[in-house]
Amino acid sequence: MSRTVYVNGDYLPEEDAKISVFDRGFLMADAVYEVTSVIDGKMLDFAGHATRLMRSLGEIDMKAPCSIDELEAIHREMIKRNDLTEGLIYLQVTRGIADRDFVYPDVEPSMVLFTQAKSVVNSLIAKHGMKVISIPDIRWGRRDIKTVQLLAPSMGKMAAKAAGADDAWLVEDGFVTEGTSNNAYIVKQDGTIVTRDLSHDILSGITREAVLRFAAEAQIKVEERPFTIEEAKQAKEAFVTSATTFVGPVVEIDGVMIGDGKVGDTARRLREIYISESLKTAI
Amino acid sequence: MSRTVYVNGDYLPEEDAKISVFDRGFLMADAVYEVTSVIDGKMLDFAGHATRLMRSLGEIDMKAPCSIDELEAIHREMIKRNDLTEGLIYLQVTRGIADRDFVYPDVEPSMVLFTQAKSVVNSLIAKHGMKVISIPDIRWGRRDIKTVQLLAPSMGKMAAKAAGADDAWLVEDGFVTEGTSNNAYIVKQDGTIVTRDLSHDILSGITREAVLRFAAEAQIKVEERPFTIEEAKQAKEAFVTSATTFVGPVVEIDGVMIGDGKVGDTARRLREIYISESLKTAI
Repeated sequence: MSRTVYVNGDYLPEEDAKISVFDRGFLMADAVYEVTSVIDGKMLDFAGHATRLMRSLGEIDMKAPCSIDELEAIHREMIKRNDLTEGLIYLQVTRGIADRDFVYPDVEPSMVLFTQAKSVVNSLIAKHGMKVISIPDIRWGRRDIKTVQLLAPSMGKMAAKAAGADDAWLVEDGFVTEGTSNNAYIVKQDGTIVTRDLSHDILSGITREAVLRFAAEAQIKVEERPFTIEEAKQAKEAFVTSATTFVGPVVEIDGVMIGDGKVGDTARRLREIYISESLKTAI
Repeated sequence: MSRTVYVNGDYLPEEDAKISVFDRGFLMADAVYEVTSVIDGKMLDFAGHATRLMRSLGEIDMKAPCSIDELEAIHREMIKRNDLTEGLIYLQVTRGIADRDFVYPDVEPSMVLFTQAKSVVNSLIAKHGMKVISIPDIRWGRRDIKTVQLLAPSMGKMAAKAAGADDAWLVEDGFVTEGTSNNAYIVKQDGTIVTRDLSHDILSGITREAVLRFAAEAQIKVEERPFTIEEAKQAKEAFVTSATTFVGPVVEIDGVMIGDGKVGDTARRLREIYISESLKTAI
């Protein structure tokens, strides 16, 4: 069955979902995006994603395509039209359509949404954990803005695949920044969670924010600071968070088993808390 | 009059030139490009651009959409259908159309071409020179691959505009890498040209290669090494090269006049040589 895709006000069969080749999202990666998870037909953390979208737009002086309320209505309509029970909604906003020029044009932004149906709760990664490799972080300097400049993360994912791993952790100046499309964490032997502090170097994950809040509520100590791959290899546990992975246990880094090589208690517990708590506020 | 745009085998009126929103050029900046100048209906340095395109594709494991001969035929057809006498041909190749995933899909690449008519020989910049500001280089680490990840250069151009300048020179670790869409040069007081050596840090400019060859033939000394903004401010001349600017004199950097603030002899001479020599081999 063909999905229904949203393109600038129209709900179209996916084979008709097209955009001008003069769209700056296509020509210059002049675009930002968000991915919102859906469970039981309801969106998790929609407000967080919508707020971050507006921040991304502001950071690159791009107009908002509509209000957050209108955005929510379009998301809901997409769930309905696609009979989406579990999976995700992808949203992309670009600066709009104009003849190619490095100078920003004064045009209306483009907006595209589509859905992907997939199991996000019962994933293989949640069950067995994932293997990661470390690679140099060659991305641009404003990773706090969620742009579609995703070739480096895509190359990283391919490098991981070629090495028989599931994902890559990116390393800059000796320290882990984040995963290719997720925030990275380790759990020290004393149970303290360590994850990199927010800056232009990493994305301010919506799931990261929620998980750190739930960790604090569960009396788990958290240190927000950079860590090295060496420290990670000696950790009790490691995991990632993202909007679609939620909390994804990491059981191997660069061929070295983390802890006993099985999904750790902290990751499992935080994943359970995240899913159950997020479902309470899902809309 | 509407331009004719090439999209995956079809020659279309520009208003019908559309691409699937699932094209990875749109979703992930998974695309590379080339820009070839046209004078008197003929392409300058086409072979250089086609060769660099193939290299870019190879660096990111992307399939070539066609042979260089076929690429040339499509370029020629675009000149003909658009009655292009002077201006440029833009070419973009993407990994193709597939549901969104960081893992590369095994699909056929997409190819898009369009033209822009403009005066490239008699430009205001050639006559009066340009003013540049220096800003931090926040681009990714593989600038030798000509990808469409152009948000940082676009932001740089806007910063220059806001400062009343024409362009920005990008600075990393204290040294100039290049301009937002051109290679950067200074001319020392003794007449020696200095430009950054090739690496992953800068694009291997097709015009750069030709200009350095013409400089050598004209007995001008060339040093390929990094230089600082401070050294540039004390230079006799400064200039940039690109496929559409050819040789563009720089007369001011961060508000400091370079030389006597007028278009320098070396830049003027190299521009004349570049245009006349390139026209001899234009096709």
